[in-house]
Amino acid sequence: MTASREAILETVSAYVRLVADGTTDELMDLFAEGATVEDPIGSEVRTTRAAIREFYATLEGLEQTAELSVVKIADGQAAFLFELVTHIGETAYTIAPIDVMTFNEDGKITSMRAFWSDADAHIGSKSA
Amino acid sequence: MTASREAILETVSAYVRLVADGTTDELMDLFAEGATVEDPIGSEVRTTRAAIREFYATLEGLEQTAELSVVKIADGQAAFLFELVTHIGETAYTIAPIDVMTFNEDGKITSMRAFWSDADAHIGSKSA
Repeated sequence: MTASREAILETVSAYVRLVADGTTDELMDLFAEGATVEDPIGSEVRTTRAAIREFYATLEGLEQTAELSVVKIADGQAAFLFELVTHIGETAYTIAPIDVMTFNEDGKITSMRAFWSDADAHIGSKSA
Repeated sequence: MTASREAILETVSAYVRLVADGTTDELMDLFAEGATVEDPIGSEVRTTRAAIREFYATLEGLEQTAELSVVKIADGQAAFLFELVTHIGETAYTIAPIDVMTFNEDGKITSMRAFWSDADAHIGSKSA
């Protein structure tokens, strides 16, 4: 059974919100056992819960805002565009990845692959 | 060797332009030998040149416009958002998929997977 569109949309919305200002524990709750994370595409795929936790732990405590722009859902999978802004001092670092996710029947993430590169990143002053 | 960012961007741009108003032959030229197409996600994967040609041949002759909105490229792969509008009489059918592609070292498409569903489609009058 594939996850419903509604369940996937709920998980994706929660993911974007929690990447910005959630705890690592809250983010990990969105992932199924055995999930994998490749962020960005081309980096080593994280295949253990410890490796995934290590990745998201680096975000905890940062001053961030995120916004979900576009979500496409089909057959228990999703691709979505979102913008993540990290504020460090007076500088705002913006990345806007397209993430591709698969889900189990409960709407938990079974894989995440993030399409972005340094060429897409934007660095601006806080007033920008 | 992975395709350069520039080569991938060129192929993606050509793809979106040709989906709208190219010939099937022109579109097929963008695909590597052995390429696969899954459009939409969840449909049977087309694994032969004949099956891929059959898919794109249905677009030939339609009155269509397309616009590439967002492209993310990493490690010889791309995810991109575009809008395709098909005009049939006074009615405009709009879909805005997120396509995920892999490329060979020459920038030819080795796989295409299109994320969209009927829930994303929009039907409007020509004046809309």
